[in-house]
Amino acid sequence: MRRRRSGGRAARQAERVANHIEQQPFLTRRLKPVEVLGNEGLEIIEHNADIMLEEIGVEIVDYPEAIELFRGAGADIDGTRVRFPAGMCRELVANSAPRTFTQNARNPDRSVVIGDPHTVFAPAYGSPFVSDVEGGRRYATIEDFRNFARLAYMTPSLHHGGGTLCEPVDLPVNKRHFDMVYSHIKYNDKPFMGSVTHPDRAMDTVDMCRILFGADYMEENTVLLSLANANSPLSWDFNMLGSAKVYAEANQAVLITPFILAGAMAPVTVAGAAAQTLAEALVGMAFTQIVRPGAPVIFGSFASSMSMQSGAPTFGTPEPALMLYTIAALARRLGVPFRSGGNLTASKTPDAQAAYESMATFVPTVMAGVNFVLHTAGWLEGGLTMGYEKFILDADQAGAGQALVAGVDMSETGQAMDAVRETGPGNHFLGSAHTLANFETAFWKSGQADNNSFEQWEEEGSQDSITRASQTWKRMLKEYEPPPLDEAKDEELCEWISLRKASFPDSNV
Amino acid sequence: MRRRRSGGRAARQAERVANHIEQQPFLTRRLKPVEVLGNEGLEIIEHNADIMLEEIGVEIVDYPEAIELFRGAGADIDGTRVRFPAGMCRELVANSAPRTFTQNARNPDRSVVIGDPHTVFAPAYGSPFVSDVEGGRRYATIEDFRNFARLAYMTPSLHHGGGTLCEPVDLPVNKRHFDMVYSHIKYNDKPFMGSVTHPDRAMDTVDMCRILFGADYMEENTVLLSLANANSPLSWDFNMLGSAKVYAEANQAVLITPFILAGAMAPVTVAGAAAQTLAEALVGMAFTQIVRPGAPVIFGSFASSMSMQSGAPTFGTPEPALMLYTIAALARRLGVPFRSGGNLTASKTPDAQAAYESMATFVPTVMAGVNFVLHTAGWLEGGLTMGYEKFILDADQAGAGQALVAGVDMSETGQAMDAVRETGPGNHFLGSAHTLANFETAFWKSGQADNNSFEQWEEEGSQDSITRASQTWKRMLKEYEPPPLDEAKDEELCEWISLRKASFPDSNV
Repeated sequence: MRRRRSGGRAARQAERVANHIEQQPFLTRRLKPVEVLGNEGLEIIEHNADIMLEEIGVEIVDYPEAIELFRGAGADIDGTRVRFPAGMCRELVANSAPRTFTQNARNPDRSVVIGDPHTVFAPAYGSPFVSDVEGGRRYATIEDFRNFARLAYMTPSLHHGGGTLCEPVDLPVNKRHFDMVYSHIKYNDKPFMGSVTHPDRAMDTVDMCRILFGADYMEENTVLLSLANANSPLSWDFNMLGSAKVYAEANQAVLITPFILAGAMAPVTVAGAAAQTLAEALVGMAFTQIVRPGAPVIFGSFASSMSMQSGAPTFGTPEPALMLYTIAALARRLGVPFRSGGNLTASKTPDAQAAYESMATFVPTVMAGVNFVLHTAGWLEGGLTMGYEKFILDADQAGAGQALVAGVDMSETGQAMDAVRETGPGNHFLGSAHTLANFETAFWKSGQADNNSFEQWEEEGSQDSITRASQTWKRMLKEYEPPPLDEAKDEELCEWISLRKASFPDSNV
Repeated sequence: MRRRRSGGRAARQAERVANHIEQQPFLTRRLKPVEVLGNEGLEIIEHNADIMLEEIGVEIVDYPEAIELFRGAGADIDGTRVRFPAGMCRELVANSAPRTFTQNARNPDRSVVIGDPHTVFAPAYGSPFVSDVEGGRRYATIEDFRNFARLAYMTPSLHHGGGTLCEPVDLPVNKRHFDMVYSHIKYNDKPFMGSVTHPDRAMDTVDMCRILFGADYMEENTVLLSLANANSPLSWDFNMLGSAKVYAEANQAVLITPFILAGAMAPVTVAGAAAQTLAEALVGMAFTQIVRPGAPVIFGSFASSMSMQSGAPTFGTPEPALMLYTIAALARRLGVPFRSGGNLTASKTPDAQAAYESMATFVPTVMAGVNFVLHTAGWLEGGLTMGYEKFILDADQAGAGQALVAGVDMSETGQAMDAVRETGPGNHFLGSAHTLANFETAFWKSGQADNNSFEQWEEEGSQDSITRASQTWKRMLKEYEPPPLDEAKDEELCEWISLRKASFPDSNV
């Protein structure tokens, strides 16, 4: 890997710059994950998922090939309805899906391990709009996408570049994936996600990575992770399953995520939504293992509540937090990595509502032991908007994750008896040898919080956190320097993209 | 109790009004409390606390009477330094302090049970300043105090009226406790906290409650809870211990809380600060049991980190969250109720920083099973300011607590298999019989969050959460009607206060 990127003095210099970008390692937990339900409850939910798959089954929409694959693996087929004997999907997944896998980045220092006991943070995904405090809310463009790729590169607490950082609606729907994937490659050197809006676009993503990483390398190594959502309840379509098939065939990772607004796409209860999520995810995960046993796959859950008055999705409520804890435990029992959570909110602006709601999801995300966290930074307005300031503020909070999951240090230094003996009653610890030896690493330090006195804060303009975050992202984009990228590879990629783009007409479908 | 308050038609009408004020019950958890350390680690911390008490001991400042009481109970005395044989304090507490107790309110419907498996929420405590979005930050007055007593009365998620809601700095220091305690009695009917700034003021508080509740009643029943802070490290003074003695003698509850800024008043590590907190709290709790075995006492912890660069206290960091989980487990092992947490922040304004930091403490508070939560609502600027909007926003979030600790409903309704069977693949659940039967109670609903569409939000003036909260507290104060209070009692109280106030000169010490 390293050899492929080397190329003369300029490249070596660029590599030195890249290595100076601060990066925090992905989280490694020493804390036990928090669980909210005992084994008996989890077994009931698993049983209910089995019943759903056996009695009700799932609809496979516009994808006869997938139906035939399921039939071949032992499912009962009735038109487009596919039913699974109890335990069939679970066995397919448990027998071959890896417990953990490495998603390789083009900079090997940025590769991540997905699975227990680790947690990997990725930016928010999928917003058609962006907003910042000065410009307000507007449709996203490819330049916004590039900006968020640059910010993700420069943000130490984000271990992953993410996927659809925002929808570049200034580009045709059927070609924007080229520019999105290229931006991930060009402006960041962390691992990233591929296109899933059509199997052809998934194939384009794989082909671009084959140029970047080499086809042989990709046969043995996972470099892509891509998100396939079920059409809840109990339905999977051609685009998502077809894209999943492309990636699984190429030994690339798929994140199988039922997207559930409980009350609309699932029952209004935690146990009901959890069982349905498990059922739907089992089908998607089993599909990847039928396509290629051993292909890396992540059990995903996106579950939110809704206002039963207005029908609006709501975030940061306690019931989805309970779903998160419950489904994380189900994934551990199944033995696959788990994705959920993030900093979710319905707020239109990064105000207190946004932060309360975000943390009401993010703290459970970390405490439940989620392995891959999409939507770590930037999410506003139920995912419709990617916010520049919200991105900065969320990512800052994410930086606290490692200290939390590291748990309590019970070493001699951690017990600090010498410090207490040295200091004694009524004195202060500021000058004790123990404090002096440990203060620099003692406490996680926010880069965004203002802890100054009121007087100093006032003197500096009484800035709230939006104002400070605005200054941060602007400064970051100004200081941004791209990570080194082998020039020959870059040219080859651009040429390939240009030929592919010219080979079929623009379309907004 | 009910008989004492009745008194003609007006009183009965007022009582009906009071009963229409919405009040959520204190939390009752079905979830197991989250723990971050196994028994072995907790035993080491207990052992270290014993060593601190036996080897180093505590200073008892300006309070020879307390030293004599400790000597009588078996402690080793060396001047003002008091050392405790290993296990002595623990035994005193474990042998007689109650695991749970009821703090009675003058409205018996508002009485609270403090101890497992319950959680009681009280407002923030002790700020010299108040702030609101229009008036900015200013010194607090008795009218602010009354306002927060009114708001606490009207806030369903607050189960307790709190104590020093803010410092009424317009009143003389040595007499303001009369007005504070009277305001709790007059403007709210929930349980509240007494004065601790001098034992005489503690006695005044007890005397006022004897008028309100009757001296005989108070001998058998706890109506007051008061906060005694240690002077960390390892030091207790006359005012705090002396006030604790007054309350314990009267069978009233004391909340023993080491106030620790780790790095200044304790070591910079979780295990070190936890052991010191336990040691200091054991001394205070043991003292109450020496004074009156069986007097209700709460093990408290207030632990925060600090910026080792500027010395400023910092909030919402992960290390104090780990301390909270650890010390909550120590309190459970000791068998006494535990106080900690709240919605803490260093922010000067209820912005995103305030909310991120608050939730980084509040979620652990709820998940750790804290029994009494001071600082649930209003805290800004490291406790220097009580914020009107922050009060509303924090209290709104506190409303989510019960749904979280209730855990997962595994009843047939909770499992919701009928809903999945009825709905089937690809359809929606909005009209299913299960949804219609359960939607009203399915999800906790914020009273402050805006979940509307961007367009509707914009049309309504693009209000952020500060603006909405500002409207809320103003409306509440406008609509406020005091709870019924027996007129004869009220007169007797006012007369007594007036005589006491006249009996000694004003002073600001």
